[in-house]
Amino acid sequence: MTNREELNIALIGFGTVGSGVARILSTQAENIAVRAGRPVRLRRVVVRDLCKSREHLPADVTVSTDLQDVISDPEIQLAVQLIGGTDPAFDYMTRLLAAGKDVVTANKALLYLHGETLFRQASDQQRTIGFEAAVAGGIPIVSAVTQALTGNQILSLEAILNGTSNFILTHMLDDDKTYDDVLKEAQSLGYAEADPAMDVDGTDAAQKLSILTQLAFSTRVPLESFVKQGIDGLELLDLQVASDLGYKIKLLATSRLNDDQLEMSVQPTLIRADREIAKTDGADNIVAVRGDAVGMTRFSGAGAGQLPTASAVVADIIDYATGRTAVTFESVLRTLAQPDRTVQPPGELSRRCYLRFTVDDRPHVLADVADVLGRNGISISSVHQEETSDDSAARNGSARLVIMTHRTTEGNLRAADKEIGQLSSIQGTSIRLPVAD
Amino acid sequence: MTNREELNIALIGFGTVGSGVARILSTQAENIAVRAGRPVRLRRVVVRDLCKSREHLPADVTVSTDLQDVISDPEIQLAVQLIGGTDPAFDYMTRLLAAGKDVVTANKALLYLHGETLFRQASDQQRTIGFEAAVAGGIPIVSAVTQALTGNQILSLEAILNGTSNFILTHMLDDDKTYDDVLKEAQSLGYAEADPAMDVDGTDAAQKLSILTQLAFSTRVPLESFVKQGIDGLELLDLQVASDLGYKIKLLATSRLNDDQLEMSVQPTLIRADREIAKTDGADNIVAVRGDAVGMTRFSGAGAGQLPTASAVVADIIDYATGRTAVTFESVLRTLAQPDRTVQPPGELSRRCYLRFTVDDRPHVLADVADVLGRNGISISSVHQEETSDDSAARNGSARLVIMTHRTTEGNLRAADKEIGQLSSIQGTSIRLPVAD
Repeated sequence: MTNREELNIALIGFGTVGSGVARILSTQAENIAVRAGRPVRLRRVVVRDLCKSREHLPADVTVSTDLQDVISDPEIQLAVQLIGGTDPAFDYMTRLLAAGKDVVTANKALLYLHGETLFRQASDQQRTIGFEAAVAGGIPIVSAVTQALTGNQILSLEAILNGTSNFILTHMLDDDKTYDDVLKEAQSLGYAEADPAMDVDGTDAAQKLSILTQLAFSTRVPLESFVKQGIDGLELLDLQVASDLGYKIKLLATSRLNDDQLEMSVQPTLIRADREIAKTDGADNIVAVRGDAVGMTRFSGAGAGQLPTASAVVADIIDYATGRTAVTFESVLRTLAQPDRTVQPPGELSRRCYLRFTVDDRPHVLADVADVLGRNGISISSVHQEETSDDSAARNGSARLVIMTHRTTEGNLRAADKEIGQLSSIQGTSIRLPVAD
Repeated sequence: MTNREELNIALIGFGTVGSGVARILSTQAENIAVRAGRPVRLRRVVVRDLCKSREHLPADVTVSTDLQDVISDPEIQLAVQLIGGTDPAFDYMTRLLAAGKDVVTANKALLYLHGETLFRQASDQQRTIGFEAAVAGGIPIVSAVTQALTGNQILSLEAILNGTSNFILTHMLDDDKTYDDVLKEAQSLGYAEADPAMDVDGTDAAQKLSILTQLAFSTRVPLESFVKQGIDGLELLDLQVASDLGYKIKLLATSRLNDDQLEMSVQPTLIRADREIAKTDGADNIVAVRGDAVGMTRFSGAGAGQLPTASAVVADIIDYATGRTAVTFESVLRTLAQPDRTVQPPGELSRRCYLRFTVDDRPHVLADVADVLGRNGISISSVHQEETSDDSAARNGSARLVIMTHRTTEGNLRAADKEIGQLSSIQGTSIRLPVAD
């Protein structure tokens, strides 16, 4: 079964993760050969700029700027595609598959946007795509969902999938700092990109959730079909009030079977502080998978970073070398070909909620807000009016009003949002977060 | 690659886990066929007693008491061996493999005691053994170590592997109860066996650690070669004092590379309360794996129980049906064939320690104990003399003395143990626990 000949591979892209992969392949060469059943040799690297110096690159590796060099080299069986974004990554993947190369990739945006096309092409040409590193970095969640838990009907996924957001939320609360301050800190420490938009607005987590949902529930759900909310509107006060009430706020990605419908969202969410997922701090990721047989299982660790991501890429390379990828990829294709489930319309999402308003500090404001909520069928569970420590707010005669609601629908809340926005006593932006059960 | 013919299997043993497997195979039949690429049919069950009623057993399954019925049925390719203990399990496994059947098993004691023989036999006869369910029930830790993390040099495993012990420790502290009371409760709830010896004396966890160590460090370490201590000597007071000092006590199984030597132990251990592993409560298991590339990853969930264990067994059946087991088992055999590492002699284990003595409540006792420790090169970090709430102890004029030491060796401690045991001021049993870093 095993091909004892050496496996020749190419890396497409040699940034942070690429050099991490090269480093593992050289430091763990012996161990990898044992696990893989044959030596794995890095033969070629395709880069944009030939002049950059490259760490961990053995002298016998051919570096070039032309993908064609990999495509036309019959020795290369597996190409490891590590270019971010979709251009030229998508074109490269297509050309590699067309040339009969198998591919491993860590590019989650590419899989989210073009996965269907790429998987179909790979299937048509009897090629494979390995993508463990595309979701949650070093945490082997793709193999858990596609292999280890396949005896289960998966009932729910609840996950922290964006390390940047989790780092920011953790340090705001722990260090008593504003969103902007911690973001700057995260950028200087390398935990956040110069342009952190995709991380903090929830897009990154939503793309990963969409990929996991496809694997777990064989249903492709585009980002437009579920509620996505980032952490960028949160204030330190929100984290503090939540904490006083016994909750942590986490950017929670959820996919749950609910009466045979898929209920999905990515939102900063109040989670009871004693739950494992609430205790996942810093840049770590966690995925909690509930299966009908296994119950709740949890997988946590570094969701990004050079070596954790490279660790997942190398696992994919070893899987390919042994022949395991061929088997698993076929199984994934069969799963994806299953009929889609219905996705619950966002307006029907039903949760308890946390509402925070900045209001004029004068009589009857609470009555106004409560009236709008009541007329929209939203029942109040508790009210907390916080002293504001914010000087400018105090000067403006404003107060922070926090309302916890009983279970209600997203639709009711959206209707109430509109009306409340028109109240003259409401200042600036309000925020609304779900509370996890 | 995939054989689209149906896979016919037999269950050997139809107790709790067996009926769970049958239940999953029937309720998830469609899902399993998709993942496996072919239908999985339960054809035969071998039991001890034909007269027992059997839940979840489809009418077309042939039940018999004779293993020979499976052996001589050429339709059966895979036998799922779910008999506990080693007799007749070992004989059955040997006969099944000799007859050309592949085997899946959840029997950890069997693998610990006879794994080497069975793996060699399977290898010689080009058969496979799947054993995900043998360690940590529903948590896919075997596949994590043998597949997902193979790009890493694993540096350490730290785990809670015995649900019964963890349940008892959790409820002693949370409910303010003695060991004996919680043990009785655990037995009535089904979390502990009528004879819980193997669970509470650390044997069960040590066997599982030995199996994981073999997979992660390709070194077979028998229980005699490392320190194994159960929870049966612990008092509620120990948990309370530890808690006051900021620690939880957990039955921790550790296997760690230390200067190229393997450092192993299974002991109730003081773990800083804010560490994930300290927060794993009740009957849950957790395995924290540190790899040189991936950093710290954690896997947690139900470590035992009917359906969690059956979930892992079914994953093994699906892996077999797809052809993945053949590949993985070969890779495991290559790993196990690697040269063994040296195991650190137990006397050289170096840790901080918690010591608790019941002493006469009179002058100079602390001086006596401190003198023995000092002469054995053990340096004291803090001393806590607790008021005893135990009436009989108070009557006897005794006090509980707790000493936290700086880092010292197991050898020094053993020497001190002997001398302290001979002090006339020491009453009854003392206890000594390591403190995790």
